[in-house]
Amino acid sequence: MKAWEANIRKVTPYVPGEQPKDSNVIKLNTNENPYPPSPKVKEILANVDNLRKYPDPEVVKLREALAKFHGFDTSEVFVGVGSDDVLANAFLTFFNGDKPVLFPDITYSFYDVWANLYNIPYEQPALNDDFRIVKEDYYKPNGGVVIANPNAPTAIGESVDFIKDILDHNQESVVIVDEAYVDFGGETALCLVKDYENLLVVRTFSKSRSLAGMRIGYAIANKALIAALNDIKQSINSYTMTSATIEVAVASVLDNDYFNEHVKKIIDTREWFSKEMRELGFSFADSSANFIFAKHNKANAADIFNAAKTKGIYVRYFNKPRINNYLRITIGTDEEMRSFIDFIKDYLTTAGC
Amino acid sequence: MKAWEANIRKVTPYVPGEQPKDSNVIKLNTNENPYPPSPKVKEILANVDNLRKYPDPEVVKLREALAKFHGFDTSEVFVGVGSDDVLANAFLTFFNGDKPVLFPDITYSFYDVWANLYNIPYEQPALNDDFRIVKEDYYKPNGGVVIANPNAPTAIGESVDFIKDILDHNQESVVIVDEAYVDFGGETALCLVKDYENLLVVRTFSKSRSLAGMRIGYAIANKALIAALNDIKQSINSYTMTSATIEVAVASVLDNDYFNEHVKKIIDTREWFSKEMRELGFSFADSSANFIFAKHNKANAADIFNAAKTKGIYVRYFNKPRINNYLRITIGTDEEMRSFIDFIKDYLTTAGC
Repeated sequence: MKAWEANIRKVTPYVPGEQPKDSNVIKLNTNENPYPPSPKVKEILANVDNLRKYPDPEVVKLREALAKFHGFDTSEVFVGVGSDDVLANAFLTFFNGDKPVLFPDITYSFYDVWANLYNIPYEQPALNDDFRIVKEDYYKPNGGVVIANPNAPTAIGESVDFIKDILDHNQESVVIVDEAYVDFGGETALCLVKDYENLLVVRTFSKSRSLAGMRIGYAIANKALIAALNDIKQSINSYTMTSATIEVAVASVLDNDYFNEHVKKIIDTREWFSKEMRELGFSFADSSANFIFAKHNKANAADIFNAAKTKGIYVRYFNKPRINNYLRITIGTDEEMRSFIDFIKDYLTTAGC
Repeated sequence: MKAWEANIRKVTPYVPGEQPKDSNVIKLNTNENPYPPSPKVKEILANVDNLRKYPDPEVVKLREALAKFHGFDTSEVFVGVGSDDVLANAFLTFFNGDKPVLFPDITYSFYDVWANLYNIPYEQPALNDDFRIVKEDYYKPNGGVVIANPNAPTAIGESVDFIKDILDHNQESVVIVDEAYVDFGGETALCLVKDYENLLVVRTFSKSRSLAGMRIGYAIANKALIAALNDIKQSINSYTMTSATIEVAVASVLDNDYFNEHVKKIIDTREWFSKEMRELGFSFADSSANFIFAKHNKANAADIFNAAKTKGIYVRYFNKPRINNYLRITIGTDEEMRSFIDFIKDYLTTAGC
């Protein structure tokens, strides 16, 4: 080993879902939205100007739009390069203590990557056999709590009272609620922000707003938490969101009719798809997200995953304890989900299931 | 103090130059380029599509374009959200040792912010009285070396032999050369990458490529360094560069004629402006960047800074030891620099200097 190699920080990076170059595949593996963003976005992009100048480092225009949309003050809104950027900054900002941060054993698999990167101690209480979070596991002393609600990859949403109970038992550490999928049927904790000064709610434009390609996430919390988060962000990079991104994000927030209409389409698709999948022998919890997390009563998940891929249909498979016989299937268009159903019928017949 | 506040990481954030909302000001305070980016950029933005999908997390298209442009392999190129993102990641990746990282007392003022944020020990050898880096100061054992070349805010460029000497005396730690301003007349260390496996050269699109608003930076180094940097990046955020950013950056790299023509314009402006400023009683080293760092033989820098602002001309003033009687003045268009000269002539007459 070279001397300089000894000073390199060792990590095990997060592995994102595959992004195949072939645009003909049916891509149900990264929870992207099958519909394009608001047509206003394209108009805005064609007219973005003044790229020679730095963007506003405080991103006031977008923070104001989000504050107004959700009924908060601009000082209660933080924005970043996708919710991953917001969450990474939040881990670095709020979890600087000695006690372990708590998050479920089965949840968004970036949480433990950030904890390891920043040397944050953590524990992962197990979901129960129905993949539900056991709230009593979060009553013990800790350095922070992170709950994805709806949870990923389970797609299970918990009630706002459930989150309130966790907050009532956690007044001494920051509680992050990651609401990446909330628009598809979850209950939001935003209504608790006024009463719980240690609550940070995180959102993304990548799923319900069809803007994964523009990297936009945000957090809402009381202004002391937002100020601390902003201080860390301003200690890493003054300008994280491009001028184009800011304009596009504002356009998306303002086009609420488009947003509601397309979220509803995905929910409708999810409902008939869920019904047909159950009829084909899959079992899974009701989804509050834009995906289902399902296992078949006979066929093996890894086998289905590989067979689907050969047919140009990408879903997500996690080769991890407890979930290695499940598939996470993103809800696409009606046509895409019909293709998946057709594939799975063929597959099950051929496999004799 | 609330219990949860005890776990918040304490930092002193970097303070970027002011971004006034009034678009009528003459903005010579953040080293932005006065010319728009290549017209190809606007075309590209109007046609960016598929924003519902995540960008390529490996950003192969842009890394390939940069590799080709500079004569390297794609595996030797890393890209990020401005060179600040690249540098912040590099500090986190490479400076995980116990010995102090070395960078000058007067240099880009983000270096100590990153070191403090990530708990990296550091020392800042003093520039000499001519604001030159003393290379012998970098011969001692260290955990890393960071040299901005040309340096900021001094605008002084050192030769490639100077950098080579520092590398020859530093085989045991990673040496970062920050070449944000190199295109305006500096000597690049890129030619040393093949021979020095511990050298990381960092660049930005924010200055010479007129794309500050799109946040694009990159690093070139041997593939082991790039792989380590990429592992850290992939442990924070899989997708940092927007789909729009990637396309815009590639378009900029491909339009080399536009790039060369506009860099030359700025150098030409700098040369006549420098001559006139010296005739007016300012002294400063020859600039290898798109700014000068000057003091007047009679007038006080802070006073000039404030007076200029009341006339709608923004320059940069650092209230810091050794440099608190200097102004950093970005090179704008001929017309903008003529306005500055007119202002300063009036100011000096009125002030009786």
